[in-house]
Amino acid sequence: MPLTNAMQMIAENRLLSRWSDLLERRPDQQNHPQETDAELVPLPDGKNLLCTTVDTIAEEIALGFYRYPETIGWMGATVSLSDLAAVGSQPLGLVVSVTLPQDADPSFQEGVARGLDAACRAAGTFVLGGDTNFGQAASITSCALGLVPADRLLRRTGCQPGQLVYASGRLGAGSAAAARAIMDIPEKLYSESDFRPRARIEEAQHLSGFAKACMDTSDGLVATLDQLMRLNQVGFEITAGLMDALEPRSRRLCRQLGVPPLLLLAGHHGEFELVFTVAKEDRDRFERQARSRGFTPLLLGRTIADPVIRIAGDPPRQIDSARIRNLADEAGGDLTRYLMELTQIVTGT
Amino acid sequence: MPLTNAMQMIAENRLLSRWSDLLERRPDQQNHPQETDAELVPLPDGKNLLCTTVDTIAEEIALGFYRYPETIGWMGATVSLSDLAAVGSQPLGLVVSVTLPQDADPSFQEGVARGLDAACRAAGTFVLGGDTNFGQAASITSCALGLVPADRLLRRTGCQPGQLVYASGRLGAGSAAAARAIMDIPEKLYSESDFRPRARIEEAQHLSGFAKACMDTSDGLVATLDQLMRLNQVGFEITAGLMDALEPRSRRLCRQLGVPPLLLLAGHHGEFELVFTVAKEDRDRFERQARSRGFTPLLLGRTIADPVIRIAGDPPRQIDSARIRNLADEAGGDLTRYLMELTQIVTGT
Repeated sequence: MPLTNAMQMIAENRLLSRWSDLLERRPDQQNHPQETDAELVPLPDGKNLLCTTVDTIAEEIALGFYRYPETIGWMGATVSLSDLAAVGSQPLGLVVSVTLPQDADPSFQEGVARGLDAACRAAGTFVLGGDTNFGQAASITSCALGLVPADRLLRRTGCQPGQLVYASGRLGAGSAAAARAIMDIPEKLYSESDFRPRARIEEAQHLSGFAKACMDTSDGLVATLDQLMRLNQVGFEITAGLMDALEPRSRRLCRQLGVPPLLLLAGHHGEFELVFTVAKEDRDRFERQARSRGFTPLLLGRTIADPVIRIAGDPPRQIDSARIRNLADEAGGDLTRYLMELTQIVTGT
Repeated sequence: MPLTNAMQMIAENRLLSRWSDLLERRPDQQNHPQETDAELVPLPDGKNLLCTTVDTIAEEIALGFYRYPETIGWMGATVSLSDLAAVGSQPLGLVVSVTLPQDADPSFQEGVARGLDAACRAAGTFVLGGDTNFGQAASITSCALGLVPADRLLRRTGCQPGQLVYASGRLGAGSAAAARAIMDIPEKLYSESDFRPRARIEEAQHLSGFAKACMDTSDGLVATLDQLMRLNQVGFEITAGLMDALEPRSRRLCRQLGVPPLLLLAGHHGEFELVFTVAKEDRDRFERQARSRGFTPLLLGRTIADPVIRIAGDPPRQIDSARIRNLADEAGGDLTRYLMELTQIVTGT
């Protein structure tokens, strides 16, 4: 897949593209760069693909988003398990490399382990092993491993205009958790342990045969739609009510802060839901089957030919998603500036 | 495998044992903690095991052992590929998470990529994907993935008294590289790029059917023998000449510094050779077969019933390997103290 000009507009894509230019690729790797949330290698059985992905959490800890070791462990497992979910994979397990703060007492390690274990249980999997280091600041890197039958694989590519776009659940919890840290919100309004997103492993199993493109919202809804837009050269029209798209605690926080719901959908600290498209003619069958399995996907809107992200209304409103995505890079670690500029973009001021 | 008192004497084993106590284990995982260099999970084909391992390199960079981005990339790939070698696995690829220094120019990323690519080529494998972060200091975490047929698996356990112990090649290069940094040795005597250890993937393929226990020397020869001693409740008698066991550049450095060769075999910065035992009756067949494939293993000595590490001689000399292994923890990052105390231990002063 050549990196289009549209892809190159995003700083993160340029960075990844440089690695791809520099590193030789395994000839039978089953995904091009950016095309899937996890890397895919064929296995000798001729049926399954090995899925793998690696993610480091360091900045979120340094910024104070994750102060509890339990959160570090939970998120350490969830970030990579969520990538497995987005390709439709069932996890085999994960390996983790944990950097413990030099001055931490043993309860820190115990907390990280509790969080890791709880997130693995929620996804029906296990930590297989790992590596421990000591450093100035805590960080965690996890590598999740899983299998997917080649004919059940979900990719980021494959959507076309005229399809429906869904999220696997209501959104905004990632931004609410970030807001808690940035704005120093009282615990009773939103507490750090309110943010325990589950990797949507099981839900992803219900998408096979329906989803035409799938990606997790690890960087928030707007970044996810933006990337799907650039990869597929389609746009998105959001017809769902934005306040209604927020999960209840995030919605309550949104109201109490008096900020527009789009702010919580545009923030880069995502909630690890899956965003995917479904053909219109499959809608009834998909929704019925999902409901029968206790899974209620949220209809966000539809794909459109124009490569933009638009909120339906009179008049409709276009979101400058490239500016939103590049904001995190431009603001560096200056969260106040980030929040101010993001607010300006989403309110159009 | 219960953690014996002998295992608990080593700080690193205690740390790993705490994780094992805290985390639920996958019921069909094919290795107990510490029993293999990589984690093992059965695959649906009923024949192959998936092998995986994760390692972070941060301290070596902070200590100045790896100043060139090429070294960081090379070592980032090699540490985890070497663990695959030690279980007899053929690699499928690796995923890497790289933290680039915030202030580094693009040539840093290019250097890391060149090193990663070169180490992968040397092992016949590829980087499948990864994650990039920016931080105060560079670090790299790699997770290697591979396959091994269950009947060709190499474990750390299974050796008994009366066997021969080998290394896959001459030793000391890791310590020489560390000495270069600690003692600020001129480039012409030992340069950073002299240290490019190769993961012994191919050599490990020749061990199947012969090796009774196998482990890589990622923490140096003495730590490796010590761990094999504790896991197997056997001891080791080194009969090889210690100077002869050093690889040529390390030997030259050893002579020029006027330090005992044991210092280079006892240092914690290993050289990523494999140490393994072979039954005496298999010696001729093993050595002949190895040579016919261009592989010349180094005979180090033999396993003994007494759980100690002993250097043959008149009188024989016992090495306090527990003290050596725990020294890295006790000295923290104080390299001068580390080197002084290690010298005292190996010279018996």
